[in-house]
Amino acid sequence: MTAVAIDDFVHKLATVSGEAILPFFRTSLGVEDKSRGKAFDPVTEADRAAEQVMRSLIRETFPGHGIIGEEFGNVATDAPYVWALDPIDGTKSFIAGLPAWGTLIGLLKEGDPVYGLMHQPFIKERFYGDGASARYRGPAGERALAVRDCKGVEEAILFTTSPRLMNADDRAAFAKVEDKARLSRYGGDCYVYCMLAAGLVDLVIETELKDHDIVALIPIIEGAGGIVTTWDGGSPAKGGRVVAAGSRAVHAQALEILNG
Amino acid sequence: MTAVAIDDFVHKLATVSGEAILPFFRTSLGVEDKSRGKAFDPVTEADRAAEQVMRSLIRETFPGHGIIGEEFGNVATDAPYVWALDPIDGTKSFIAGLPAWGTLIGLLKEGDPVYGLMHQPFIKERFYGDGASARYRGPAGERALAVRDCKGVEEAILFTTSPRLMNADDRAAFAKVEDKARLSRYGGDCYVYCMLAAGLVDLVIETELKDHDIVALIPIIEGAGGIVTTWDGGSPAKGGRVVAAGSRAVHAQALEILNG
Repeated sequence: MTAVAIDDFVHKLATVSGEAILPFFRTSLGVEDKSRGKAFDPVTEADRAAEQVMRSLIRETFPGHGIIGEEFGNVATDAPYVWALDPIDGTKSFIAGLPAWGTLIGLLKEGDPVYGLMHQPFIKERFYGDGASARYRGPAGERALAVRDCKGVEEAILFTTSPRLMNADDRAAFAKVEDKARLSRYGGDCYVYCMLAAGLVDLVIETELKDHDIVALIPIIEGAGGIVTTWDGGSPAKGGRVVAAGSRAVHAQALEILNG
Repeated sequence: MTAVAIDDFVHKLATVSGEAILPFFRTSLGVEDKSRGKAFDPVTEADRAAEQVMRSLIRETFPGHGIIGEEFGNVATDAPYVWALDPIDGTKSFIAGLPAWGTLIGLLKEGDPVYGLMHQPFIKERFYGDGASARYRGPAGERALAVRDCKGVEEAILFTTSPRLMNADDRAAFAKVEDKARLSRYGGDCYVYCMLAAGLVDLVIETELKDHDIVALIPIIEGAGGIVTTWDGGSPAKGGRVVAAGSRAVHAQALEILNG
C-alpha cells in the first residue's frame, strides 16, 4: 500500500460516507416524514449507513485490514493496518441541525496513527494529514494546514465539547486552565481540532474520548505542526483524556496546570 | 415599499455584506499575512466593511429610513422604517473559524419587526421571514421553515450561547430549565434561532441581547410558527433577556421556571 493509494482510498471513503449521511441531515427541515414513525432516529440511521458503506469498501479493497468502528464494533485489531471510523462525530450538533460535526477516518499502522481525514459533507470540507503534513479542501479553496504560534495559555483560544461531559475532578482541573485562557468556548467536537490545525484555535482539552474519536485527528494535528497527547503526556491514540495544542509552550503549560 | 421590494432588497443587502465579509473569514487558514501587522483584527475589519456596504445601499435606496447598527451607531431611529444590522453575530465562532455565525438584517416598521434575514455566506445559507411565513435557501435546497411540536421542557433541545454571559441570578434561573431539558448545548448565536425555526431545536434562552441581535430573528421565528418574548413575556424587539420556543407549551413552561 503506497502513500498515494492511502490518500486516494481515504478520500473515496469520505465521498461514499458523505453520500450515505447527507439524506439524513436536517430531514425535518420543513419536511416532517410521518411515514417513518416515532422510532426513526436520523442520526443513528445515518451513522449506521455510513459505517456500513465504509466497512464494505475496506473489506473489499484491503481484506487483511482490521476495523475499529463506533457502530459495528471491532474486527482484527491485531492486523498490521487497522482503520478507526466514526461516521458522525458530533451527534448532538447533527441532531440540532448545526454543521459542527464530521466523519472521522483514521488509519493505524502497528498501533500508530499514520493517516487521518475529517469530512464535513454538508459544507463540503475535508481536513487531512499524514503526520508530516496536512491539507484543507473546501469552499475556501485548497491549502496547507499550519498551526499558529501562541506564547501561553493566557493568549490562547480554548475549546472543549462540554465541561458537563467531565467528572468532577477533571472539571475542576479544566476550570483552572479555562480561568487563565483568553477565550473559552464549548462545542465543536472534531471540528475544533481541525480549526487548531488551521491556526485559528490554540488549545483543545477533552476527556472520555474513544479511540475512534481521536485516531483520525492525530495525523492532521501533527501534520499541521501541532502536538496532541493524553493529560499525562502519553500517546493519545487510545483516547481518554486528551490535550491538543498548536504550540509546544501552550501544551506544556496546559499539562502543568491540569496536573498541578 | 411593497412586500416584494423588501424581499429583493434584503437579499441584495445579504449578498453585498457576504462579499464584504468572506475575504476576512479564516484568513490565517494556512496563510499568515505578516504585512498586515499585529493590529489587524479580521472580525472587526469584516464587521465594519459589511456594515458600511449595507448602510450605503440603504441610504441610497431608502434615504428616509433609520438605521440601528452594531458598528456605526444609530441614525433616525424615529423614522417609520428602521433597519437593524448586525454584520457578524457570533464573532467568537468567526474568530475560531467555526461557521456558526451569521449576518442579521432586520426591518422595523413603527417599532415592530416586519422582515428579517439571517445569512451564513460561507455555507451559503439564508433563513428569512416576515412574521407570517419563513423560508430557507441553501445547500439543502429551498423550502418553508416550520417549527416542530414539543410537549414540554423535558422533551426539549435547549440552547444558549453561553451561561457565562449571564449574571448570577439569571444563570441560576437558566440552570433550573437546563436541569429539566432533554439536551442542553452551548454556542451557536443566531444560528440556533434559525434551527429552532427549522424544527430542529425547541428552546433558546439568552440574556444581555442588543436589539440588533434579535430584531432580524423575530419575523423568522414567528414566520415559522414559533414564539419569542422577553423573560417577562413582553416584546423582544429591544433585546435583553429572551426566550424563543417552537411550541407554546414549552415557551409557557420555560417562562414559569425562569420566573419561579
